[in-house]
Amino acid sequence: MKHAVDANLARLLITCPDRPGIIAKVTTFLKDHGANITDLDQHSTDPENGTFFMRLEFQTPHLDMSNQNLEQAFATQVAEPFKMQWQIHYAAKLKKMAIFVSKYDHAFLEILWRQARNELPLIIPFIISNHPDLKKAAEHFGVPYHHIPVTQNTKKEAEAKMLALCENQVDGIILARYMQILSEDFVSRYPNKIINIHHSFLPAFVGANPYQQAYDKGVKLIGATAHYVTQDLDMGPIIAQDVIRVSHRHSADKLRELGQDVERTVLARAVRAHLEDRIIVDGTKTVVFEQH
Amino acid sequence: MKHAVDANLARLLITCPDRPGIIAKVTTFLKDHGANITDLDQHSTDPENGTFFMRLEFQTPHLDMSNQNLEQAFATQVAEPFKMQWQIHYAAKLKKMAIFVSKYDHAFLEILWRQARNELPLIIPFIISNHPDLKKAAEHFGVPYHHIPVTQNTKKEAEAKMLALCENQVDGIILARYMQILSEDFVSRYPNKIINIHHSFLPAFVGANPYQQAYDKGVKLIGATAHYVTQDLDMGPIIAQDVIRVSHRHSADKLRELGQDVERTVLARAVRAHLEDRIIVDGTKTVVFEQH
Amino acid sequence: MKHAVDANLARLLITCPDRPGIIAKVTTFLKDHGANITDLDQHSTDPENGTFFMRLEFQTPHLDMSNQNLEQAFATQVAEPFKMQWQIHYAAKLKKMAIFVSKYDHAFLEILWRQARNELPLIIPFIISNHPDLKKAAEHFGVPYHHIPVTQNTKKEAEAKMLALCENQVDGIILARYMQILSEDFVSRYPNKIINIHHSFLPAFVGANPYQQAYDKGVKLIGATAHYVTQDLDMGPIIAQDVIRVSHRHSADKLRELGQDVERTVLARAVRAHLEDRIIVDGTKTVVFEQH
Amino acid sequence: MKHAVDANLARLLITCPDRPGIIAKVTTFLKDHGANITDLDQHSTDPENGTFFMRLEFQTPHLDMSNQNLEQAFATQVAEPFKMQWQIHYAAKLKKMAIFVSKYDHAFLEILWRQARNELPLIIPFIISNHPDLKKAAEHFGVPYHHIPVTQNTKKEAEAKMLALCENQVDGIILARYMQILSEDFVSRYPNKIINIHHSFLPAFVGANPYQQAYDKGVKLIGATAHYVTQDLDMGPIIAQDVIRVSHRHSADKLRELGQDVERTVLARAVRAHLEDRIIVDGTKTVVFEQH
Repeated sequence: MKHAVDANLARLLITCPDRPGIIAKVTTFLKDHGANITDLDQHSTDPENGTFFMRLEFQTPHLDMSNQNLEQAFATQVAEPFKMQWQIHYAAKLKKMAIFVSKYDHAFLEILWRQARNELPLIIPFIISNHPDLKKAAEHFGVPYHHIPVTQNTKKEAEAKMLALCENQVDGIILARYMQILSEDFVSRYPNKIINIHHSFLPAFVGANPYQQAYDKGVKLIGATAHYVTQDLDMGPIIAQDVIRVSHRHSADKLRELGQDVERTVLARAVRAHLEDRIIVDGTKTVVFEQH
Repeated sequence: MKHAVDANLARLLITCPDRPGIIAKVTTFLKDHGANITDLDQHSTDPENGTFFMRLEFQTPHLDMSNQNLEQAFATQVAEPFKMQWQIHYAAKLKKMAIFVSKYDHAFLEILWRQARNELPLIIPFIISNHPDLKKAAEHFGVPYHHIPVTQNTKKEAEAKMLALCENQVDGIILARYMQILSEDFVSRYPNKIINIHHSFLPAFVGANPYQQAYDKGVKLIGATAHYVTQDLDMGPIIAQDVIRVSHRHSADKLRELGQDVERTVLARAVRAHLEDRIIVDGTKTVVFEQH
Repeated sequence: MKHAVDANLARLLITCPDRPGIIAKVTTFLKDHGANITDLDQHSTDPENGTFFMRLEFQTPHLDMSNQNLEQAFATQVAEPFKMQWQIHYAAKLKKMAIFVSKYDHAFLEILWRQARNELPLIIPFIISNHPDLKKAAEHFGVPYHHIPVTQNTKKEAEAKMLALCENQVDGIILARYMQILSEDFVSRYPNKIINIHHSFLPAFVGANPYQQAYDKGVKLIGATAHYVTQDLDMGPIIAQDVIRVSHRHSADKLRELGQDVERTVLARAVRAHLEDRIIVDGTKTVVFEQH
Repeated sequence: MKHAVDANLARLLITCPDRPGIIAKVTTFLKDHGANITDLDQHSTDPENGTFFMRLEFQTPHLDMSNQNLEQAFATQVAEPFKMQWQIHYAAKLKKMAIFVSKYDHAFLEILWRQARNELPLIIPFIISNHPDLKKAAEHFGVPYHHIPVTQNTKKEAEAKMLALCENQVDGIILARYMQILSEDFVSRYPNKIINIHHSFLPAFVGANPYQQAYDKGVKLIGATAHYVTQDLDMGPIIAQDVIRVSHRHSADKLRELGQDVERTVLARAVRAHLEDRIIVDGTKTVVFEQH
């Protein structure tokens, strides 16, 4: 049940214009330097002139050079000729993500609980909330809790405090139902590193109290969407979605309760994909190389 | 596998203001007249001052009067005092529904096929289409096919033809991807009797080519919604919804193909609920007493 | 998100030979004594000579007599003439259930966590384990933890201790992966009150290490079954089941992890159905009146 | 909605002992001969000394030699040094599969219907049945129907007739609820080429009338398993599985009807995976590289 970290595991993510020979070049390079590939997932958007995406896992123990040198060699010998955008991540280096939360505890506790059970390979350096309510819950898990109130007047100042806490301390942020909108400036510092969760409906509902609207409309499914946060208010690239079946027997309150169940499941799935370096952002959308 | 019709089965649907004693009154009335209740599903929206909904199945062989007299007695002795809206349907009297279709055959064939296999207790007197394409498919199933082209100029006339065909011949209509908007006048003649199916997305997409939009946005779920057609262009009361999981590997075309799979499943489920008298329309929404 | 207990809510469960007039009799009785029925779910196994099952929710504030007197009147006036087996439960009186656990914490923590969040209307007076490992976790939730080791020689004595703890203190027991077999004597004291969870496979595997067997066989689904514990070793009446999709990419260990996810979801669903008095045991099987 | 065959598409399946450099070797070989890889899915069972599985799609228009010469070069230069088991399939060459059926038509019609709608890239040269019942249905689809009765005494002779029909005419066989057991000899001629579908339950039921047993046991899920047929009576390597939720409201007959719905869905999914060369058999199990 534990998510034991494989200390020898590295993950390579690549995006580039598709053309013949990319896989051969990458895998020959890795083989020549002693890397053993254990998983490779590749996708091209089109047989001709498409975009090439690849996620590749390899074992590092028999590398003939340091990780740093390997990355440098890869950059000049492989990545540049093919105009690649690429990243290498090492499973041994756990990602550090802060949790931002307001008052709803469902998504927040889901992440804390799964992290505590070693189901999410993650360090949570601290929690930031605009409310004091969940301080005790955070302490149960031994995670520092910073209460930073936000009002219209103090928003700038509050964000400065948050940034000061985050700087050099976190690789990303999980918005576990944080009910404040982050400024463009804040978001721009963590591109494709801030994960948000919100409810989703068929059809969509605009305005306040969407669960009441869903109830009034008699929807038969309610759902949730996890996505990366981008600068405009519109939803950023979608990472994961799911729905649950409901009926006329469910009150608006019960819809909200069921919606929260979906929200926490979908958020946990998105965070896991992020932590395992399964996601490549491609403009307004994502390629998610899921473990099926 | 066959959906044998139970010739002795009747179904009673009731909506009324909730107050104590409704179920006692209804069930005592039925018992006193020899009806044996075999299934009862009831729902109140609130413990106090809510709305009362009930679906009840009973057996008719030991009734002490004709169906017609029973209905009359029910109206005066039970329905009026409680201000009920109510209907009684007899399973032996199959509903007659026309299918309207354009060029897409997936939803159309699903209904024809299930009817042919006795999975849907339904008579299909004829098919109407604004295109000739599916004539041969209809003939395979032995169902008359009326090709009635529709242009902006001939719409009124075309609808008159359709109405003439439908009048006294059908109890309702299945829109199996019929790509014309029916006029208010047409719709008003079959209130809560016309079932439509369309694709649904999280989030919703407005405008042309929604599957391309869904692809561009990288959605992870695509779905379908079946609903009753109402006079305004907005979607009427939802009957059934479902979704299917998709990924970056699916092209816009493949999304369309998968979307059609969901559409036909959801349409068949909605039609079945309608045929089995499981649906009560409550303003803008439905109560669906599903067989779980 | 909270499962607020409705202090005025009572639930009536009935099993009896089917014949006309049962619902009329029950609902007239309740109405005459001031009970307002808010939900009724009824099922007969057959139109003729079947078995009748019913679950009914009613509001108690306007009863014209005490709960105790109502039950007495119901017994003589309704239940006896129709040869009913019946129970009335009051939502205000929370059920008290002990948790038995060994070393696996997934199902155990799921119940504790949901109870702590008021998602399960339940009192957990204490936990019993044959191992000391989960003591600290129990303390986090403020629930007493009794470590009672069990060996072949001490089993009888150990069970005597458990029974002494349970007597008059609990209404039932949740086996959250308790890896000891309870004796017939123990089980007989809590008929249809002990809920167990175990893994399930298609096909079923006998013997040790079923996840390894499932892996070796390349199954595409793994599942879990929650059931009431009966005296023979075979599985008792099934309450809830679910499965999850797996593939060749999942190691036997990963299958176990995913299996545990299903186990805790299914156990929670079964416990909730039990707490909400939704289950009638009918010989070797259950009727579960789910909230759809 | 149509499954247009990509005339330029080839698929390569490889199994071999894992060691560094396999992917580099294969992909360099293909690139050197003008093949453009558009999809690659790879799996190793273990980082050290595991088994290596790979499915790879490539485009053939720019190959620098004939398909046949490419295969020969691949065999000597790549496959032999790495001790590979391998196959190359060309999408343009549709597989020819016979359908064997008895009296149940659900799985049979599902395959015929999907093939007719170009959803399954497949040629069905003929149908063989031990009963005459489905002849007319087959004729609807324009597929020859051979009625070959089988009794205990005539089984050998009947199989000889079937083999004579199949020889050189089919690449494989779909058992769409064919209720006869094929002899070891017959099966041995189509290794991993005969696909069967049968019902599955949690727990499993042995003996006659499994749906009645499932009903008596009150199961909450019923399912289906599609698998390759092997020589012993036990189920061969599993290709696909699924389940559907049921309740006490479903009679044994209704369970059978729902079970047939799952059977036809699962069979179609397995056949599609087979036709798209997504399956590698690995001893008693399969690796299925699904299109997610």
